[in-house]
Amino acid sequence: MNERYDIAIVGTGPAGLSAAINGKIRNKNVILFGNKQLSNKLVKAPKINNYLGYPNVTGEELKEAFVNHIEDMEIDIVQERINAIYAMGDFFSLMVNDKAYEAKTVIIATGMEFTKPLKGEEEFLGRGVGYCATCDAPLYKGKKVTIVGYNKEAEEEANFVSELASKLYYIPMYKGNYNLNTNVEIIKDRPLEIIGGSMVNKIRLNKVELDTDGVFILKDSISPGQLVPGLELENEHIKVDRNMITNIEGCFAAGDCTGKPYQYLKAAGEGQVAALNAVAYIDSKK
Amino acid sequence: MNERYDIAIVGTGPAGLSAAINGKIRNKNVILFGNKQLSNKLVKAPKINNYLGYPNVTGEELKEAFVNHIEDMEIDIVQERINAIYAMGDFFSLMVNDKAYEAKTVIIATGMEFTKPLKGEEEFLGRGVGYCATCDAPLYKGKKVTIVGYNKEAEEEANFVSELASKLYYIPMYKGNYNLNTNVEIIKDRPLEIIGGSMVNKIRLNKVELDTDGVFILKDSISPGQLVPGLELENEHIKVDRNMITNIEGCFAAGDCTGKPYQYLKAAGEGQVAALNAVAYIDSKK
Repeated sequence: MNERYDIAIVGTGPAGLSAAINGKIRNKNVILFGNKQLSNKLVKAPKINNYLGYPNVTGEELKEAFVNHIEDMEIDIVQERINAIYAMGDFFSLMVNDKAYEAKTVIIATGMEFTKPLKGEEEFLGRGVGYCATCDAPLYKGKKVTIVGYNKEAEEEANFVSELASKLYYIPMYKGNYNLNTNVEIIKDRPLEIIGGSMVNKIRLNKVELDTDGVFILKDSISPGQLVPGLELENEHIKVDRNMITNIEGCFAAGDCTGKPYQYLKAAGEGQVAALNAVAYIDSKK
Repeated sequence: MNERYDIAIVGTGPAGLSAAINGKIRNKNVILFGNKQLSNKLVKAPKINNYLGYPNVTGEELKEAFVNHIEDMEIDIVQERINAIYAMGDFFSLMVNDKAYEAKTVIIATGMEFTKPLKGEEEFLGRGVGYCATCDAPLYKGKKVTIVGYNKEAEEEANFVSELASKLYYIPMYKGNYNLNTNVEIIKDRPLEIIGGSMVNKIRLNKVELDTDGVFILKDSISPGQLVPGLELENEHIKVDRNMITNIEGCFAAGDCTGKPYQYLKAAGEGQVAALNAVAYIDSKK
């Protein structure tokens, strides 16, 4: 049986880190999913002057202070990308490729760095469109697969799938050198639409159309509505109250994904509130 | 004519400081009322581990970081105690003894360190009970006055009033040496009830009763409902939405006074949100 955590936190921006710290201080068994670089947005910030206590810092400096804090408290970051979170009644299943993590509560702190879905992406989700190529790879043995990759990690998934698929198209959404198997065909073009009947059969790009049986879209983070089926949104943000409680019992959210202003201190404060309310929720169930 | 500020912030805990920083960054003309010691609660905290970026600090250390931040941004603290805030239509009047400050918007960040009102305090407010002895002193020339003082600053007011009053009782609610004129009578007893008919005529303490024409209660901060007439409360907190907007147009609130959890980082994040929404409000009126 899987270990069941008290609190699973998705995202390592200020909201997720603050949530992890507060959960740990309250003696909860916390698991934190994200990236050891914490947050692209944070690291790239040239100057931050409104994080109270840190005048005139760079994003990199603030990141170092945050890393120092979680290391001091012995909080690890699990570098895995959660593809989906399912409410199972009295716990949640967090899916990572072929693995599932279990937790009594979830705090979504995934930020707003996700991209808009492609035309057809949501329509064909589960009918040829997916967010985890390695998990669904067996379904595409001998078939044509297209991977839209938003980061270098997507290359590993492409290489893995290319060993099973009859054809693998890789559409990189970033610049750089691509470390791909020789049988992977790189298509440098902008994807516009996923097309099909009952299942996907084509992807239309700016200049070409490709025949394909499956399309995997591998982003840094997926939108909250796709991540947690049934989660109530308001405009494009997760709907929460002042206690950072969502419409799903045991599911909390914090930071940019819950609304503007997109600010580090606001996010960190919300992560704290989310964690303390998750703790209260867990204790109320005892 | 008085200078009219864009944003008046009441309180120098994390919420007030964060609000001031964010208002100033947005080029608003900000005035910050409070104490150069910032916050008693903060300074006395033996250990804080959940202010993201500052593992394992004392309250004093965090206070120093905050002072450093506002000094770096050239934000001053005006050490005056606001007695009342009145919504005047398109601006607010903030009363300090015999002075009035004007501001387009107000952010209440006064914390939760106020004490419960005495029995009779609210009933006789304005009919012999007041929160500013020096402002009302002329009304008590040749009369008996009682001052309930919660801090050393109250002693100055007591000395001032003792020069006009026929009798001045000083009830200190703190320990220490009292720097009072010789004609001030110190009563070391616990006040229980303010009594009167159409006006105050007595204060009942644990052991004695005193005849008095007026009672001034000089606290670090007064409750938000007393500070801002008409402000909507929920339980004992100021009711705000996720944008830190109160029921009074142009009046925002942040930090402990808006609800639990009582946490520094939560308060600081809320101060930021309040300030950014005050900025948006001001800009929308142009």
